[in-house]
Amino acid sequence: MSSLIGIDWGTTTFRAYLYDQSSTYVDRISSAAGIMQELHPDFENILYDQIGSWLTRYPSIPIIASGMITSRQGWVETPYLACPASLENLGKILTAFRLHDGRDIHFVAGVSQQHPTANIMRGEETQMAGLASRKPTLAVLPGTHSKWIWMADECISRFTTFITGELFTALTERTILGRLITDQKDPTSFRLGVEEGYYSSSRTGGILSQLFGARAKPILGLMQPDAVYDYISGLLLGTEVKEAVELGVEAQIRPLVCGSSALVTRYQKALQICGFKVSVAEQDSASTGLYRIAVEAGLLAR
Amino acid sequence: MSSLIGIDWGTTTFRAYLYDQSSTYVDRISSAAGIMQELHPDFENILYDQIGSWLTRYPSIPIIASGMITSRQGWVETPYLACPASLENLGKILTAFRLHDGRDIHFVAGVSQQHPTANIMRGEETQMAGLASRKPTLAVLPGTHSKWIWMADECISRFTTFITGELFTALTERTILGRLITDQKDPTSFRLGVEEGYYSSSRTGGILSQLFGARAKPILGLMQPDAVYDYISGLLLGTEVKEAVELGVEAQIRPLVCGSSALVTRYQKALQICGFKVSVAEQDSASTGLYRIAVEAGLLAR
Repeated sequence: MSSLIGIDWGTTTFRAYLYDQSSTYVDRISSAAGIMQELHPDFENILYDQIGSWLTRYPSIPIIASGMITSRQGWVETPYLACPASLENLGKILTAFRLHDGRDIHFVAGVSQQHPTANIMRGEETQMAGLASRKPTLAVLPGTHSKWIWMADECISRFTTFITGELFTALTERTILGRLITDQKDPTSFRLGVEEGYYSSSRTGGILSQLFGARAKPILGLMQPDAVYDYISGLLLGTEVKEAVELGVEAQIRPLVCGSSALVTRYQKALQICGFKVSVAEQDSASTGLYRIAVEAGLLAR
Repeated sequence: MSSLIGIDWGTTTFRAYLYDQSSTYVDRISSAAGIMQELHPDFENILYDQIGSWLTRYPSIPIIASGMITSRQGWVETPYLACPASLENLGKILTAFRLHDGRDIHFVAGVSQQHPTANIMRGEETQMAGLASRKPTLAVLPGTHSKWIWMADECISRFTTFITGELFTALTERTILGRLITDQKDPTSFRLGVEEGYYSSSRTGGILSQLFGARAKPILGLMQPDAVYDYISGLLLGTEVKEAVELGVEAQIRPLVCGSSALVTRYQKALQICGFKVSVAEQDSASTGLYRIAVEAGLLAR
C-alpha cells in the first residue's frame, strides 16, 4: 500500500518518488521540469502534469517536497533552519500549502549558516537526512554549487559551498579558454590540473593566474589543446580540495561523496590524488531523506 | 615633419598614432576596430579604412604595430621573445609584412615565459617599452587579463597574468550571481570585498567559496543586493593582490599601475587597501613604447 509521495524539485530537474511502507521507493518519475524551465511557471499545473496519475490513484497520501522549489525563485519560500540544524528539527518545521483539490503539499525548510561565513542550502539537507544512517563526519555533494557538509550527532554542524561547477561552465563556455576546448577525456591532464590546483604554491601561483596558464600552455606547445578541458576541470577541483583543507578538512577524514555518477567519479579521483580515502554513497539519498523527514514530521501513519 | 605611424591593435580596440620627431604623437585615431570585430577580417582593408589619409599623405614613413594583431587570431603571428626579454632586443626582431602599395608594416614580437609558469603577452611589452623611462620594478597593467610585470635593467624579467577581468565578466553576466547585480558604485562593499579576498584565511575560505557567499549574504539579509557587484569586484581584486603577494610581491614594492582610468582607479584603491603605496602612469604608454621600439629597430632616420 502506497504511503507517501516525495518530490526532489531542483533548478533543472524534477524527481518524484512513490513509497510503500518503507523508505525504498516503489515507483519513480524523473524529468527536466526544473524550476527554471519556464519563465513564470505554474507549479501546481506542472505537478499535475508530472504525477497526476499518482495523485488521482492515491487521493489521500501525503506529499513532501524539497529542493530549489522552496526558494524565492520557487513555489513556496520556506524558512531556513540555522546551523547546527538537526535532522529531527527538519521534520518539525514543514511549510504546508493547500492545493486546489484540497490536499496539502509539505515543503521542507532550507538550512542556513551565518558564521564563520554566510551560507545557505536547499535540497542538500534532505540528502543529508537520507545519508544519516551512514553516519558521515563529512559529506561532499558535487554539483553546480558543490557542498561540503559537516555532520555531528545527526546535526548539520557547518558547511561550505564552492561555486566550482558554475565557474567551470562559465569559463569553458564564456571565456577565451573555451576556444581551445574539446570535451575529450584526458585522465593525465585532469591529474596534472588537480595536482597544480591542490599543491599550488608561491612558485605556481593561485587559481587566478593558473587559469591563464591553461591558455598559455597550449599556445607555447606545452599542452595539447585537447587536454585543456580536463586540465581546467582538474585545476578547479584541486583548488576546491585545497580550499576545503584550509577550512579544516584533515587527511584522516574519509569524505562521503554523493551525487550523479560522472561528477562523483571526478570528485573521487580528485580527492584520491590529494591523498584522501573516499566513500561513495548511493545516488538516491534525496528519496531516502524525503521519507525520513516525512516520518519525523508525523506525516506517515505509524 | 611626420616620422612614424604607430599602431596599438588589440582585441577590441584599434589605436593609431602619428609622430613628429619625438615620442609624443601629434595626431591620434581610436576606434572599435579590434581584431575580434569581424569573423574573417581583412586587416589590410581595415588599416586603410582607419588611417588611409595618413598613408596617402606620408607615403614613405615607417609603420610599426603591436598588440593582439600579432597573435594567431591576428594578421601576422610574430615570435615570442623569451624572458628575460630586453626592450632593446624587442627592436631587433620585428616581423615585416609588405602591403599592396609596396610599403612595409613592422610587427613587434610578443614575450613568453616558461618558468616558473607558462605565460605569454602581446602588447604589454610595448607598454613596458613606453614605461621604461620611469624605471619601474613592478608594473601592474589591469585589463581582461591583468599583468604584473617585473622589470630589471630594461628587461622584462618575469610576469604573471591574472584572468580576473574576464572572470568578473563571466561571473556577473553568466552565472546566478548576476541575477542580484546592479552596476551601482558602492565603495564600502568594494572595500569589504578587497579585504575579504586579500585577508582570506582558514576562517573565511578561499575564492571558490567566497564567491558563493556573494549569493548567500544578500539572501540572508547580510548585504544589500545593490552591493553585490562591487563586492565581487573587490573580492576578485583582493584575491589577485593576495596571489601576487604569494608570488613574491613585497610590501615595500611600489607598483606602477597603468591602464584605462576606471580600472586604474579600482586597482589603485585595491592595492592601497592591501597596504601598498602605488604610482600611476600616464595612459599612453603604448604610443611611447611603439616609438621607442621603432628607434631601437632603426626605423627612424637619425
